[in-house]
Amino acid sequence: MAGSEPDPRRRIVAGAADMISRRGLTATSIREMAKHAGAPLGSTYHYFPDGKQQLATEAVRYAGDLVSRSLRRELPAGPAAGLQAFLDMWRTIVLDSGFRAGCPVLAVAIEEPPTDDLPPALVAAAEAFDQWETLLADSLRAHGADPGEAAEVATLIIAAVEGTVAMCRAKRSIEPLDRTAAQLRRLIDTVTPAER
Amino acid sequence: MAGSEPDPRRRIVAGAADMISRRGLTATSIREMAKHAGAPLGSTYHYFPDGKQQLATEAVRYAGDLVSRSLRRELPAGPAAGLQAFLDMWRTIVLDSGFRAGCPVLAVAIEEPPTDDLPPALVAAAEAFDQWETLLADSLRAHGADPGEAAEVATLIIAAVEGTVAMCRAKRSIEPLDRTAAQLRRLIDTVTPAER
Repeated sequence: MAGSEPDPRRRIVAGAADMISRRGLTATSIREMAKHAGAPLGSTYHYFPDGKQQLATEAVRYAGDLVSRSLRRELPAGPAAGLQAFLDMWRTIVLDSGFRAGCPVLAVAIEEPPTDDLPPALVAAAEAFDQWETLLADSLRAHGADPGEAAEVATLIIAAVEGTVAMCRAKRSIEPLDRTAAQLRRLIDTVTPAER
Repeated sequence: MAGSEPDPRRRIVAGAADMISRRGLTATSIREMAKHAGAPLGSTYHYFPDGKQQLATEAVRYAGDLVSRSLRRELPAGPAAGLQAFLDMWRTIVLDSGFRAGCPVLAVAIEEPPTDDLPPALVAAAEAFDQWETLLADSLRAHGADPGEAAEVATLIIAAVEGTVAMCRAKRSIEPLDRTAAQLRRLIDTVTPAER
């Protein structure tokens, strides 16, 4: 996910997304995020004057947008193509990192906020999930799924793939993703009868 | 998940499981786990001489066994009853904690090991997932599911519920769990024709 972003600010954001997906947000300092992105600490404070929470929020949005762009690109060919793009992205991240990296949105989602206020990074995580679900649900509806069922299946797809990435990391195996993928493909076929 | 364990050693383990599910493992010190369980730090080192990784491993096993026991208790009534027990457990944890706690097994699964050696807590997380999947898959097979499909559906169920818990925490809403539950119930009906 870090990729090779040419823009230095964006490179720091991409590096932060990768690091949060590996270690979680609380356990990662802004100093480590800067180092991970190969950026001087000073430039990190220059670009992100509000500090770690600002950088983390942008990192979550970066990951959210990366997935959303991929979904928007592939969904015109149908929900199965969107699912495949979503699966392929996580497969690459998990395998290329030796099961060490995963989804920064999930990582932020499962960390308790330090106070009762909702931290902006957590709000960004909720927005990323919402966006992915909406894109998938709209596509399912456009391909003949019942509206209520489309919403349920979209949530299930996002949740199942996110959960499976975590299982793959624990097991050091990509097999859970293959199993989940097979079932989700079949489910999409079932709820979009126009496609069969 | 902390519950009210009468045994002091077990109370520390249960408290650690709860804390890991809220904050992750790397971000939690053994001192904080002791404090969270209301135990003196000295007794924590007494019970867990190998320190944080030992306590974390037992915490993951504790959570794994809690779920497995619940599944073993409910699955004789069929896979749908097992799913319901799994869903009910996470619903209670998420709602009772105000969306702050979740699954310690997932939390440990998505943290990069500090070295190339597999930490025992991560191995315990993989074992917990395996155990839950095996229990569900065996039940699905016993109720008429095709063996290969039973394995896929069991993985999907565990992954989807785990991922949904994370989505609920990010969104501060239990709605994702209701959506996922509806689809998983339907899927179990589809693959266990003997039950319909």
